[in-house]
Amino acid sequence: MKVAVSTVIFSLRQDDAGMPSLWTPFVLRTREPQLGQWALPGGWLPANEELEAAAARTLGETTGLRPSYLEQLYTFGGVDRSPTGRVVSVVYWALVRASEVERAEPEENVQWFPADHLPGLAFDHNQIVDYALERLRTKMGYADIAHRFLGDTFTIAQLRGVHEAVLGHKLDAANFRRSVATSPDLIDTGEVVSGTPHRPPKLYRFATHPQTKD
Amino acid sequence: MKVAVSTVIFSLRQDDAGMPSLWTPFVLRTREPQLGQWALPGGWLPANEELEAAAARTLGETTGLRPSYLEQLYTFGGVDRSPTGRVVSVVYWALVRASEVERAEPEENVQWFPADHLPGLAFDHNQIVDYALERLRTKMGYADIAHRFLGDTFTIAQLRGVHEAVLGHKLDAANFRRSVATSPDLIDTGEVVSGTPHRPPKLYRFATHPQTKD
Repeated sequence: MKVAVSTVIFSLRQDDAGMPSLWTPFVLRTREPQLGQWALPGGWLPANEELEAAAARTLGETTGLRPSYLEQLYTFGGVDRSPTGRVVSVVYWALVRASEVERAEPEENVQWFPADHLPGLAFDHNQIVDYALERLRTKMGYADIAHRFLGDTFTIAQLRGVHEAVLGHKLDAANFRRSVATSPDLIDTGEVVSGTPHRPPKLYRFATHPQTKD
Repeated sequence: MKVAVSTVIFSLRQDDAGMPSLWTPFVLRTREPQLGQWALPGGWLPANEELEAAAARTLGETTGLRPSYLEQLYTFGGVDRSPTGRVVSVVYWALVRASEVERAEPEENVQWFPADHLPGLAFDHNQIVDYALERLRTKMGYADIAHRFLGDTFTIAQLRGVHEAVLGHKLDAANFRRSVATSPDLIDTGEVVSGTPHRPPKLYRFATHPQTKD
């Protein structure tokens, strides 16, 4: 029985019209099986390395990304998921800020794809990303998601962008503003976005930032 | 690298005063390592068996329990968790009704313990049960928990019993009744507990029973 670790990374990226969407990085396989296909960053679990450490190391080696922490997502162990014998993959995930992506040294053989328009991936990796997306949409609070993608403070428009990116469709700005204005989790920091001369947008933060361990 | 599956089972049991609490079954180890210690039901993952099927089979073989479904809880793979080489354990869990426990053929070497008074268990199994308890207390809705422990319909007193068992302390009955009466998830079935001549308690059900896949 072989044990592997893989990591699903989500980050927000804005298109030319300023509309943010979810993107996720894949690594080109340079050996068999599934040579030439895109796959999740990952590798074999060495006998003397902890699961999360192995996920972080292989992620860093292949993509240059070093998120401050990874969470365990799910373990995929289908009998037929690899053509060369049984592999049990312990999958980690992280939401990373655009600034963390920019800081990473660009690596060869890495390409980011929009999470809702993925190519055909190696093994069962499409299924794994779909599972991560489902979990993002249904199990995590938007407060937590916004905090992880955007940092400690953000504008209402940025928060709406996070919701739109995760949901995959536009929201009405006025309705959104009204619905979050009544949220007890959202706190006006008293600060505004600097460098904006006319009516600078207010900065908010969340009342709590639980480091959810799923 | 060896891969194992284990299962954490929780069930409600009432003491003589009618106070329900959480109980969980363990299996006496009849071979080394950790001979004579209590351990979670489980076993090695065979090459040609799916993870969940292996968890269900080993649970049934050791405890006689056959819950209608198991959920994946977490994968534990600490480098030093087993004295005889690295073992990665994919852990499943289920909440089972008292009637399911009674239906199970009693097996030798199985004993149920109160979840908040466990013996010292084999390997890192105390840590695994603690993780399951934390998940039960913080990540699952009481609606869902009550549904799984009690079935489709239940009285307010039974629902309070579920909360008390999971929290580990008593709740004020009148306050509890008031707080759940306003819950949009709780629906009066129009039925009452049969066989209770005087003021029979009303039966409620939950509006939704999501089969949560974590």
